[in-house]
Amino acid sequence: MSSGKILVAQGGGPTAVINQSLVGVVLEARRFRNVTRIYGALHGVRGIVNEQFVDLTQETSNNLELVAATPSSALGSTRDKPDIPYCQQIFQVLQAHQIEHFFYIGGNDSSDTVRIVSEEARKAGYPLRCIHIPKTIDNDLVGSDHTPGFPSAARFVAQAFAGANLDNAALPGVYVGVVMGRHAGFLTAAAALGKKFPDDGPHLIYLPERVFSLDKFLADVKETYERHGRCVIAVSEGIHDASGEAIASLLSKEVERDAHGNVQLSGTGALADLLCDEIKSTLGIKRVRGDTFGYLQRSFIGCVSDVDQREAREVGEKAVQFAMWGDADGSVAIKRTGFYSVDYALLPLTDVAGKTRTMEDEFISASGTDVTDAFRLYLRPLLGSGMPDAFRLRAPPVAKRWKP
Amino acid sequence: MSSGKILVAQGGGPTAVINQSLVGVVLEARRFRNVTRIYGALHGVRGIVNEQFVDLTQETSNNLELVAATPSSALGSTRDKPDIPYCQQIFQVLQAHQIEHFFYIGGNDSSDTVRIVSEEARKAGYPLRCIHIPKTIDNDLVGSDHTPGFPSAARFVAQAFAGANLDNAALPGVYVGVVMGRHAGFLTAAAALGKKFPDDGPHLIYLPERVFSLDKFLADVKETYERHGRCVIAVSEGIHDASGEAIASLLSKEVERDAHGNVQLSGTGALADLLCDEIKSTLGIKRVRGDTFGYLQRSFIGCVSDVDQREAREVGEKAVQFAMWGDADGSVAIKRTGFYSVDYALLPLTDVAGKTRTMEDEFISASGTDVTDAFRLYLRPLLGSGMPDAFRLRAPPVAKRWKP
Repeated sequence: MSSGKILVAQGGGPTAVINQSLVGVVLEARRFRNVTRIYGALHGVRGIVNEQFVDLTQETSNNLELVAATPSSALGSTRDKPDIPYCQQIFQVLQAHQIEHFFYIGGNDSSDTVRIVSEEARKAGYPLRCIHIPKTIDNDLVGSDHTPGFPSAARFVAQAFAGANLDNAALPGVYVGVVMGRHAGFLTAAAALGKKFPDDGPHLIYLPERVFSLDKFLADVKETYERHGRCVIAVSEGIHDASGEAIASLLSKEVERDAHGNVQLSGTGALADLLCDEIKSTLGIKRVRGDTFGYLQRSFIGCVSDVDQREAREVGEKAVQFAMWGDADGSVAIKRTGFYSVDYALLPLTDVAGKTRTMEDEFISASGTDVTDAFRLYLRPLLGSGMPDAFRLRAPPVAKRWKP
Repeated sequence: MSSGKILVAQGGGPTAVINQSLVGVVLEARRFRNVTRIYGALHGVRGIVNEQFVDLTQETSNNLELVAATPSSALGSTRDKPDIPYCQQIFQVLQAHQIEHFFYIGGNDSSDTVRIVSEEARKAGYPLRCIHIPKTIDNDLVGSDHTPGFPSAARFVAQAFAGANLDNAALPGVYVGVVMGRHAGFLTAAAALGKKFPDDGPHLIYLPERVFSLDKFLADVKETYERHGRCVIAVSEGIHDASGEAIASLLSKEVERDAHGNVQLSGTGALADLLCDEIKSTLGIKRVRGDTFGYLQRSFIGCVSDVDQREAREVGEKAVQFAMWGDADGSVAIKRTGFYSVDYALLPLTDVAGKTRTMEDEFISASGTDVTDAFRLYLRPLLGSGMPDAFRLRAPPVAKRWKP
């Protein structure tokens, strides 16, 4: 006899649409008569081992819709990555509450958590259906056309560079914008979608998929600056040298690492400042400015793709449907079926967990410092409707009349 | 006999709505039959001395409307501050083109440029009407209720902190967001408008109107972190110690100064990183993140206040009307006449030029780290319609059932 109890949680970095997936789970689950309770764990897996659950069954549909449209993780998140003892404790708590369906919304690391929990449940003979619901602004999940959260962050980055380009055109100089993305350059590459006129920036894009050379970088900047009288540059925080050493950590004395052993790249302006200093001192350009987009690109309220909202809702709904009508654990994936249409599939957890997708070669120009039209075609539909557009004066010059 | 020639230019830092004022001048001037030509100078006063004019009379009204809705200075800008010889050269060029009306859209420094040009014109006996059209995200012009450009930048800052607060609630720690504003804290204070629920951040706001003490700052952060388990902080780039020395420059070895002798505060993440390092090392808090909003806050495309757009358009239109129907040079000012309504006045240039408004005491809380309701009442109408709103889950907790 089924208890009909569901548990949903959110892990990893928040996105603009992660609550759409949460609300997709809750509202879709309400349609199934065998569902008796929908619990939410606070702060991801940590909320499970700490037994911090809230009863989402008692939320109004109206408030759920309002929360769905609110960015960041409404249940709270965590960076914890459960090991075996951690997972055993998860089971004990789930068992105590007779929970039979576990939905975890998250990225790479979260999908691996779901995989471990699923395997531990199987080993322990506990009947737990585990579904990973994708979410990451990095767009680095294997098996998906793209991941919910990425389109909205990409839209922020594209809009930011469209504006930075206009600012840089008004007061010329060099502008460096550092974008999130440890291993995958998708979000940095989105800067290219902020470009409209042929001489618009970003003029140069540096991705973690290509080895970064400071000498080459400075030569690129010099050439662009000489051609356009200005230079707008998009740089991934994850750029690294030939040995794989992050450029950001090369200059940082105290390197902070998270629970996954990852070096802290965000929340510091060091990389932008280093690159700006190099440009100033080596190229002798006076006006050089660096911005690190930091948390704005994933948490800014009021910059969201409606396509992303819709898909994030649907991966939550599909997760419940796969759980109720299917007989396997897995990870929900978005599959592109047209220009532009999608459908959803359930992939084996082992196909997704712990793997990292990076930008395909066809998306990166031969120069290594730009994207291809294939990438523009890939990304544009994801950004959604109502993208702001930039216009220029076309007034003709006036003949000179002054005779000094 | 009047030549009917008008010149308009844009100076200083771009804003989201500075092109509204430009287009307000151009379209309003077209209504006056005595106007024969409307020229735009490229890159402010530098475009005058270099005689780089474009003929805006030949722009379509449709393209002008599209440019009006585009952020940053469509004519280009400059940081040049003309001295006497520079102004003499300006006259010679204006005289060669028989220009009789000069409109300069800009902030503090630009208003002083207009004052100098106006005085030099009078001294030289040249019939030049000079009108300063206000613009600055710093909101630091004397005599105005507020300045065009500030409301849209304030909206960006409020939305950014609303999102940063949600992100920080999901993954608790300390978040420091550094906001532009050398002497005036208005833009930093706008962070308070991102706050909705009583325990929302920003929990602490540091303004240049108050002396910054690192010890007091660390004590404030410690207390907030202990109370809420997290802390969101808004810091003005212009914070300084009791001697007036900028905290940002105290730590910076090579201080860059612009043509006005101002220290470069933007385009570097140094202040945020310093403050984060102090919090980590002194308070022993592990998760501390700093963002410098940088150029995003003034140039991001797609975050604009409709009230700001409307008023920026009107100051341009009024400038032309004051020039055509009045008999004095001056600076256009916004006067608040209701909740919420405005009208426009022409102030003497000497009342505005080179003076700096800072936040009134009634806008700053007694603690010095928050704003008052008077400030909320002042700022809210300026942010315009459609401000995004954040919602929370209200699901009740589930009773614990696990017996280890």
